[in-house]
Amino acid sequence: MPLPATTQLAVRHSRIRQSFDTLALDALVVTSAANIRYLTNHIGSAGVLVLTRQHAHLLVDFRYREAVERLQASNAACPGLRVREVPASYDEALLGCLQELGAAAVGFEAAHVTVASYDWWRRSAEARQLTVSFQPTERIVEQARVIKDVSEVDTLREAARRLDAVAGIAWRAVRAGVEERQVAAALESAMRDAGYERLAFDTIVASGPHAALPHYRAGDRILQAGDLVVLDFGGVLDGYCCDLTRTVSIGPPSPEARRLHTAVYDAQQAALATVRPGVETSAVDAAARQVLEARGLGAAFGHGTGHGLGLDVHEEPRITRPRADVPSVPLLPGMVFTIEPGAYLPGFGGVRIEDDVLVTDTGCEVLTHVPRELVAL
Amino acid sequence: MPLPATTQLAVRHSRIRQSFDTLALDALVVTSAANIRYLTNHIGSAGVLVLTRQHAHLLVDFRYREAVERLQASNAACPGLRVREVPASYDEALLGCLQELGAAAVGFEAAHVTVASYDWWRRSAEARQLTVSFQPTERIVEQARVIKDVSEVDTLREAARRLDAVAGIAWRAVRAGVEERQVAAALESAMRDAGYERLAFDTIVASGPHAALPHYRAGDRILQAGDLVVLDFGGVLDGYCCDLTRTVSIGPPSPEARRLHTAVYDAQQAALATVRPGVETSAVDAAARQVLEARGLGAAFGHGTGHGLGLDVHEEPRITRPRADVPSVPLLPGMVFTIEPGAYLPGFGGVRIEDDVLVTDTGCEVLTHVPRELVAL
Repeated sequence: MPLPATTQLAVRHSRIRQSFDTLALDALVVTSAANIRYLTNHIGSAGVLVLTRQHAHLLVDFRYREAVERLQASNAACPGLRVREVPASYDEALLGCLQELGAAAVGFEAAHVTVASYDWWRRSAEARQLTVSFQPTERIVEQARVIKDVSEVDTLREAARRLDAVAGIAWRAVRAGVEERQVAAALESAMRDAGYERLAFDTIVASGPHAALPHYRAGDRILQAGDLVVLDFGGVLDGYCCDLTRTVSIGPPSPEARRLHTAVYDAQQAALATVRPGVETSAVDAAARQVLEARGLGAAFGHGTGHGLGLDVHEEPRITRPRADVPSVPLLPGMVFTIEPGAYLPGFGGVRIEDDVLVTDTGCEVLTHVPRELVAL
Repeated sequence: MPLPATTQLAVRHSRIRQSFDTLALDALVVTSAANIRYLTNHIGSAGVLVLTRQHAHLLVDFRYREAVERLQASNAACPGLRVREVPASYDEALLGCLQELGAAAVGFEAAHVTVASYDWWRRSAEARQLTVSFQPTERIVEQARVIKDVSEVDTLREAARRLDAVAGIAWRAVRAGVEERQVAAALESAMRDAGYERLAFDTIVASGPHAALPHYRAGDRILQAGDLVVLDFGGVLDGYCCDLTRTVSIGPPSPEARRLHTAVYDAQQAALATVRPGVETSAVDAAARQVLEARGLGAAFGHGTGHGLGLDVHEEPRITRPRADVPSVPLLPGMVFTIEPGAYLPGFGGVRIEDDVLVTDTGCEVLTHVPRELVAL
């Protein structure tokens, strides 16, 4: 998919600059790599962006010189970009940049700057007798990123679509006698072939009793007849993540396996049915949770129902019970997130079913299309 | 490889507790996942450790319950472990733990705690009228991790050794007419087969002019006769990283390609020859840099000469020119790091050669054994 065009980036910049007025900022220092990419199209593991009212000052080191030049020569060039090459320390270069700009009120991303960096900035600004005041800000860029624009939705839809082919190929590797790791390798090879640039996260293949461990990855356990196997995988396409979980049975499922799968399936259906603009994230979570509680599986479902998807594989909104640190928010068109209830019975195994959804003007578009029914492989 | 035994973890704890005296701490809050693993053998993407003089209080959520129980039933159990299940927010659980412990002087990892978390801790402690004082600490666990113990060296040696097989298989995929991404897929498939649990970083296959971009990954460019191709890859074995770069030629190399490769090869040899206890990290860097400068390639080598390897793929020591934020340190036996000089000529291409080394009592053991000479494939 093409990168967001210059005009699209300009829209993003202007949205961020609205907070300059509300927060009385001269500049915002952006240090999250995903946020920098969102605002500049620059892709890198290092970089600092200083967004001012006029410009986007990108601090990058030697490694990225050519890549940035190419970007700026394309129709996805970042508007207002000023590149500054960082000879050694990024923190040092940032202070130099702020000094030259004469910025006084400088916001920074409190969730992405460590106490060590912040202390260094303050001490160094004082030593240089700068008049800069650093102001912690909360999720300014993240809040803009919650609502996906057209180019992002196109990419997320395509990333999710390609999982069909992955499942079609990888399911053939799931059978009694193979190791979990071999199944993971088959999934990852199929993701490569589908054109993903990298994995969105470490692939999970959790079989038999391992399926009761929601964060197990993949080991040397050999799949056996009667196992439930949780397969959780996803790729990154042009920066955007997809994330899918299916639970399959090795051979015919036991009645208990079937009961567990049906309960989780129904919980997911109930959550999907709630998704439309205006509904609270906590209500989506509650819809899934109530189904599992009604089947006596409330305690077996210990995690949240979903998480936002985008440049990060876990981003806003969080689909959970309301918590002090994760307030419930109303759904808005353009939000993209997973719905992934699960039930885990220690010693026996577990089930999780996960799809990716887009909130539309009237309801919900499910982006992932791999069949959810319990298949016996 | 087996996990470090309980006795080994006890040695690590006692080393960390020495800083309790020097810094007058009652407890250290450890939030870096790698540091938590180093001190407890607990592997997870979430978790907080509160190390006190007597105990190791591990805060984990529901997902890790079973994994921690298994760990504690093994001979790699964490000594003094007290597990606390986190119902919702880790920050909330941490405050509760500190309150119960009555800890007054609490160190935290300034390089791993964000300003947002730190502000929340302070506000919440005040609201609860706790007498706790939070003290930023610098690299306490990282400094212990710089010197690898026997179990770590065994694992790092084995991780590096397995790259021989990876190169042996993957080189067959490097030829004119294939895409960079296909070569990356071959490398990654070979790494899976070699038993690595995951990639240490995104594989780099940079061909032709792309080889001039030190942080390029792998794209759809098709390898052509005369290309230099930089292959930079590594896996994680039982938590520990290896990292190797080789540059190969598609068909016979041009005289300029040969000149570039010889210069980088000689630079690496010069750096390797300096490695022994007592030598400064900056001297290792200077040895490589001087060779490249003498060949007129000083400006073509814009990055540092190497980085530490361990649970993180980039850790201490940094093998660079001395900088305010990265002081030069003397090498000590048990340090493990890469030596990876490079030279990059925009438009033409580039060369990088990277090996992993262990500082021994008398010199250096090169852990990686893949031939370094310029091969024509």
